[in-house]
Amino acid sequence: MVESEHSLKASTLVEAMQYISKFKGKTFVIKCGGEIVEDKGAMNYIVEDIVTLSLLGIKPVVVHGGSKRIDKFLKDAGIESRYKGGLRVTDDRTMEIVEMVLMGSIQREIVSKICSRGGRAIGIAGTDSNMLRAKQDKSLGRVGHIHNVDTSVLSSLIEKGFIPVISPITISDDGISLNTNADEAAAKIAIAAQVEKLIILTDVDGVLDTKGSLIKTLYASDATKLVKDGVIKGGMKPKVEFGIEAVKNNVKKVHIINGQLRHSILLEIFTEEGIGTEVK
Amino acid sequence: MVESEHSLKASTLVEAMQYISKFKGKTFVIKCGGEIVEDKGAMNYIVEDIVTLSLLGIKPVVVHGGSKRIDKFLKDAGIESRYKGGLRVTDDRTMEIVEMVLMGSIQREIVSKICSRGGRAIGIAGTDSNMLRAKQDKSLGRVGHIHNVDTSVLSSLIEKGFIPVISPITISDDGISLNTNADEAAAKIAIAAQVEKLIILTDVDGVLDTKGSLIKTLYASDATKLVKDGVIKGGMKPKVEFGIEAVKNNVKKVHIINGQLRHSILLEIFTEEGIGTEVK
Amino acid sequence: MVESEHSLKASTLVEAMQYISKFKGKTFVIKCGGEIVEDKGAMNYIVEDIVTLSLLGIKPVVVHGGSKRIDKFLKDAGIESRYKGGLRVTDDRTMEIVEMVLMGSIQREIVSKICSRGGRAIGIAGTDSNMLRAKQDKSLGRVGHIHNVDTSVLSSLIEKGFIPVISPITISDDGISLNTNADEAAAKIAIAAQVEKLIILTDVDGVLDTKGSLIKTLYASDATKLVKDGVIKGGMKPKVEFGIEAVKNNVKKVHIINGQLRHSILLEIFTEEGIGTEVK
Amino acid sequence: MVESEHSLKASTLVEAMQYISKFKGKTFVIKCGGEIVEDKGAMNYIVEDIVTLSLLGIKPVVVHGGSKRIDKFLKDAGIESRYKGGLRVTDDRTMEIVEMVLMGSIQREIVSKICSRGGRAIGIAGTDSNMLRAKQDKSLGRVGHIHNVDTSVLSSLIEKGFIPVISPITISDDGISLNTNADEAAAKIAIAAQVEKLIILTDVDGVLDTKGSLIKTLYASDATKLVKDGVIKGGMKPKVEFGIEAVKNNVKKVHIINGQLRHSILLEIFTEEGIGTEVK
Amino acid sequence: MVESEHSLKASTLVEAMQYISKFKGKTFVIKCGGEIVEDKGAMNYIVEDIVTLSLLGIKPVVVHGGSKRIDKFLKDAGIESRYKGGLRVTDDRTMEIVEMVLMGSIQREIVSKICSRGGRAIGIAGTDSNMLRAKQDKSLGRVGHIHNVDTSVLSSLIEKGFIPVISPITISDDGISLNTNADEAAAKIAIAAQVEKLIILTDVDGVLDTKGSLIKTLYASDATKLVKDGVIKGGMKPKVEFGIEAVKNNVKKVHIINGQLRHSILLEIFTEEGIGTEVK
Amino acid sequence: MVESEHSLKASTLVEAMQYISKFKGKTFVIKCGGEIVEDKGAMNYIVEDIVTLSLLGIKPVVVHGGSKRIDKFLKDAGIESRYKGGLRVTDDRTMEIVEMVLMGSIQREIVSKICSRGGRAIGIAGTDSNMLRAKQDKSLGRVGHIHNVDTSVLSSLIEKGFIPVISPITISDDGISLNTNADEAAAKIAIAAQVEKLIILTDVDGVLDTKGSLIKTLYASDATKLVKDGVIKGGMKPKVEFGIEAVKNNVKKVHIINGQLRHSILLEIFTEEGIGTEVK
Repeated sequence: MVESEHSLKASTLVEAMQYISKFKGKTFVIKCGGEIVEDKGAMNYIVEDIVTLSLLGIKPVVVHGGSKRIDKFLKDAGIESRYKGGLRVTDDRTMEIVEMVLMGSIQREIVSKICSRGGRAIGIAGTDSNMLRAKQDKSLGRVGHIHNVDTSVLSSLIEKGFIPVISPITISDDGISLNTNADEAAAKIAIAAQVEKLIILTDVDGVLDTKGSLIKTLYASDATKLVKDGVIKGGMKPKVEFGIEAVKNNVKKVHIINGQLRHSILLEIFTEEGIGTEVK
Repeated sequence: MVESEHSLKASTLVEAMQYISKFKGKTFVIKCGGEIVEDKGAMNYIVEDIVTLSLLGIKPVVVHGGSKRIDKFLKDAGIESRYKGGLRVTDDRTMEIVEMVLMGSIQREIVSKICSRGGRAIGIAGTDSNMLRAKQDKSLGRVGHIHNVDTSVLSSLIEKGFIPVISPITISDDGISLNTNADEAAAKIAIAAQVEKLIILTDVDGVLDTKGSLIKTLYASDATKLVKDGVIKGGMKPKVEFGIEAVKNNVKKVHIINGQLRHSILLEIFTEEGIGTEVK
Repeated sequence: MVESEHSLKASTLVEAMQYISKFKGKTFVIKCGGEIVEDKGAMNYIVEDIVTLSLLGIKPVVVHGGSKRIDKFLKDAGIESRYKGGLRVTDDRTMEIVEMVLMGSIQREIVSKICSRGGRAIGIAGTDSNMLRAKQDKSLGRVGHIHNVDTSVLSSLIEKGFIPVISPITISDDGISLNTNADEAAAKIAIAAQVEKLIILTDVDGVLDTKGSLIKTLYASDATKLVKDGVIKGGMKPKVEFGIEAVKNNVKKVHIINGQLRHSILLEIFTEEGIGTEVK
Repeated sequence: MVESEHSLKASTLVEAMQYISKFKGKTFVIKCGGEIVEDKGAMNYIVEDIVTLSLLGIKPVVVHGGSKRIDKFLKDAGIESRYKGGLRVTDDRTMEIVEMVLMGSIQREIVSKICSRGGRAIGIAGTDSNMLRAKQDKSLGRVGHIHNVDTSVLSSLIEKGFIPVISPITISDDGISLNTNADEAAAKIAIAAQVEKLIILTDVDGVLDTKGSLIKTLYASDATKLVKDGVIKGGMKPKVEFGIEAVKNNVKKVHIINGQLRHSILLEIFTEEGIGTEVK
Repeated sequence: MVESEHSLKASTLVEAMQYISKFKGKTFVIKCGGEIVEDKGAMNYIVEDIVTLSLLGIKPVVVHGGSKRIDKFLKDAGIESRYKGGLRVTDDRTMEIVEMVLMGSIQREIVSKICSRGGRAIGIAGTDSNMLRAKQDKSLGRVGHIHNVDTSVLSSLIEKGFIPVISPITISDDGISLNTNADEAAAKIAIAAQVEKLIILTDVDGVLDTKGSLIKTLYASDATKLVKDGVIKGGMKPKVEFGIEAVKNNVKKVHIINGQLRHSILLEIFTEEGIGTEVK
Repeated sequence: MVESEHSLKASTLVEAMQYISKFKGKTFVIKCGGEIVEDKGAMNYIVEDIVTLSLLGIKPVVVHGGSKRIDKFLKDAGIESRYKGGLRVTDDRTMEIVEMVLMGSIQREIVSKICSRGGRAIGIAGTDSNMLRAKQDKSLGRVGHIHNVDTSVLSSLIEKGFIPVISPITISDDGISLNTNADEAAAKIAIAAQVEKLIILTDVDGVLDTKGSLIKTLYASDATKLVKDGVIKGGMKPKVEFGIEAVKNNVKKVHIINGQLRHSILLEIFTEEGIGTEVK
């Protein structure tokens, strides 16, 4: 090792050490969006980071989306995907396919990847042990907004060293399974479990300002304006909105980062500078 | 209450009490076959019995099959179901559908039913945390025979009061998910966890002799002959064979009973006479 | 088993299961009156039920009376039994015999019966570790009314899986042992330990109305009238009065039942209909 | 305090401290013979010492006899006391009185005395939870020799800080209560519980030699000769014999001391010189 | 043993037993002054008493002074010892020697003596883990008054059965080590840990009145006057003043005794009369 | 952050993570030699690394030397430093100064530095609680070789989260304190506690070969030859010899590194390449 390398490695290590000791034993909710779960290369690095966190004594909880693959399966079944206000209109036939794709396909892939790297993943749905209770929005069909999170399932699994991988299917008080936005599920879980961090992995570098530059730190007040002005829009809108809700409800930090960058999670968490947008 | 009723209820109670106190804290593996999971009426009573066991301090572990529904979904997808020696020939496309039907459809239904009656069900697959490791039988494609069961996942869930509902998907040592017979999965789990009972629910009254009468107690030696003579055949054959394997490996008792009878599980377990076939 | 028997047994079991799981870990105070302890046949079934409760994880605490046998011993010693307001006038010589009969004879019999059926009975008096403190009613001599119950003795024994069998001898603040009504002792213990049930076993079917029919549910207000009208009288009076006191002080339920009926305790507790009078 | 008193008290304290710290948490079986329990003055000091031991963290277990009082009660009932080889011939009627006197009279007195000084005494018999199992010696009627001690009852009580006071009634394997010598009961309990000390309180100064002088240390070999020569005889014989048996079975020390001396137990235990006979 | 000796030993024992059981598990802070630590003979008895307390389950914490030896070492180094208001004026060079003498010489001696008698002594300074935080009195140089005691170090050591031996070096909030009066250190530790007793060992019999007689019980109000009148003066003044502060802050008792008396600690603690001055 | 920095930091992090999770909960013995403790700049970085290890859940145990400062103090006292075979000839007067310098000066400095950075250091000697027992080598005077290590002191402190800082003073079986080589003390502690790593900090880069190049990995067999050939000599000789002894006795790894390099400990431990010599 040459002298400059020494110095650089040493400074990276000293910096990282602080964060590692700070986060030991803490829970991070990591949301993998519907686009990123289709990017096998990115998912390999993401899963590697998740298993690394776990080895360091940090407790990762994974929440995944799946709209892209659901769209494909619906198309194969001859069903048209319809959205209102960013949420999928979900009839019974659609819901059947949603559950099968989320639980039987995407969740299985993530669980397998984590297990093959030595992590102890267990895939569950929000309906397991009635963990995520939701109020049905009948105008959208089988769609629900979470009003109650029973964290005992998660804490039982976490305590035993498992990495929960959660599909965002929720249960109405009448016992009907509902389709729920994955950003919402991740945020509500993060709030209920009062976690240290909510990390939202997407396929862009974070929140961009009007000039297209990355906003490293996004304050709630500014965010509201950017949403109103249409700068924050599309899929980024719910991310920012649920991120703000999480921060306001005592989730310590929310990060929106580009999951396509190699080791994006480690770089965001263990370096002072970070790589994405932190919502405050 | 009239005197005779007194006496009858009293004797039923006294009889049941013995078994209840005997089985408190013990684990029962309950296998719901592919036909019985399609019978909604029967499933309601079965789930009620499962939740009752759980309230009594007995630890139920549910393993389910799903061939009937898989056949239907394959047919919808234009794929022909093929079997060799009773096992489904499973190519990659078939496997994709198998996983989606088991995890995303049947498992979800059972979990929901249990949760709606107050049980704390959690649906998992044999691939979660690499619980069920299998050796691939390449002549059948994505089909595997279990060679290792990691019971730590089950014991963690059971200890926390959850009712595991397990889909018989297994993992090869190369990390590939495989399709496995549910009777095999149930028996291997029962053996690995050294459970008190393995209860196989099917849609006939138990094992029948050459005259079609129910055999209340089936000895391993007789069973072998009955199989050879073709009296035990079809779907009953693997049930009996895995049952014998379980008994030989210290599972205390194996019951093959008709899940269509109301409260079949309670009657088999808590009365001296029972209702089905006990394998010894 | 014929179909109708199936159905009957199943319904009895389903009914009982609810109660069993509900009462697991709860404490029942069971009072065996002075007449019933002289009926060896009845005591066999009562003790069998007590041991059964214990095996089911319910915690029985037995309180026994003994007036009949005390009368006999007093007579043998040439002492006349005298009562005022239903309570025995107790001089020092009488008290000596009371203690010897309760502790050295009746308590010994009950403990032996329970132990011979596998229960872990331990006989104690209210004077052990000053468990039952009483105020002396000097007009009756060595007679006391309980003003303080130290439940730590009971909870220590119960926690270790023992079945306490308690003779109703109490201790004055001056350290003098006193004779106390067994119904009172049972009720005061039930209240202090905040138990689930107080079951008073006697030799009639329960509380009867003016026409001699069994009152299945007796409300406090009605009871007061029935006592005033002289319908409830004799030995039943203190049972009802202490029963009402228990119910008013958060003992969940009080049952007055006929200990002569076989398995009377199981039938009262584990069937919806019950067999005696429930005080509310 | 004058200088010489300083020195004397200091040496007594330093001496005692060693023993106190050595015996903390250890169990002592203390046997109060049938004569000493009739001496109220002596019993007051004995009970004070027992409570003191308990406050110091030593665990006393009291075993009491009662032949003198039993003789009196039998006489009152017109029954003649008969002995064979030092043991009471016990028919059913006699046994009834034995149980009543031991449990209902003597045990009650000792329990009361201990409780009135702040000790947490609980009186039990060897029949409670089948603690002392005995083989019946039918030539003597209802008399038994202990063949099994279940120490779990004792350890449960001791662990909870109670002082067990045990009447030497034992249970045959057929469930019949038997009369057993108190020295035997004390020794068998001491052996089964592997206690630190067995202290036998009687009304003479210890074992005397042929000249009538106290033997401070009695070796097993010498004892055998003294018994053979008739120097050790009467009630002292079983004390010495069971003492030797205890010592041979790993009870650390056996003391035979005069319970009539004030604070005899403290003086024997906490001074180097002691006051009675130590059996080795 | 003759009769009078019996009686005397018995009364000493009965008296001591009360205190022993009362103080079991309690913590005593024992301060050994700078003169007494130079008296090897006295220290042998003191250490013996400390180890005895420890064996009895009492938790001793030793705080030592050292002015006499420090004076000697300073003199050897050609430095003059200077005092203001009873406190040593401490420049950096002096402090270097103070630390070396306290930690490297006196503390080592006490630790060795305790260890050689079987005690598990561990020598620490008030600077270890920043246990004793002090405010610097710059007019005296490197001298500090304690404003905060972190008792976690002590409780960790005590819980593990160690006997802490503490040198009165303290730490300023700027991380500079300071010289602190040992009486102050002992009193502040006693207060912070809310101990049962603070025992100050010196080389006189206790606090003397105007006629030179020992004051057995010294009340705070009287003490203030005696200080004002100059009866309490010199090294006794801080002992009395910190003693009063300790008593006012819930240290149960403070004793000022002559460590030169053999077994002074045992005599003060375990006899009713005591030997020194008790501050109330 | 630029792309190349991303990649470099990411790789450093990924590399370090492995080691961090591997070493969590493990104990490292870190020996600071007599030269390095005089280098205030180096000590600041060393202490920073020690505190960092502690925050990461690694358990550091510090052993320090002090020959340089002892030499200086001896010189001031007019005593000549004499060595035989690399060990200091130690008479009583010398030993007095050795203890004072090690415990009262150097140990104090290290404890203060660690505490001021938030570590919970506690300074002890090998004589505390008789932790390090040694056999005196009388030819050298008060010098000892360790024959027994009582690890209970260390494990008690470590378990409570303290960082022990140990001066290499040992205790003979006669209770005499002895001077012991710090490399020996560190190695013996590492062996007795079966630690993960023994890290020896010195003021050269590690072990050099005949050409003066750093030997990255030194095998025991080669080391023996290098010692024989005089390539390894002086102060490096005992480091290598005790290092080999440690490795042979199951200390997982021994590192000899240059404590003058900034963050030398972190770089050696958390990078694959390392910076010094690893003994195998």
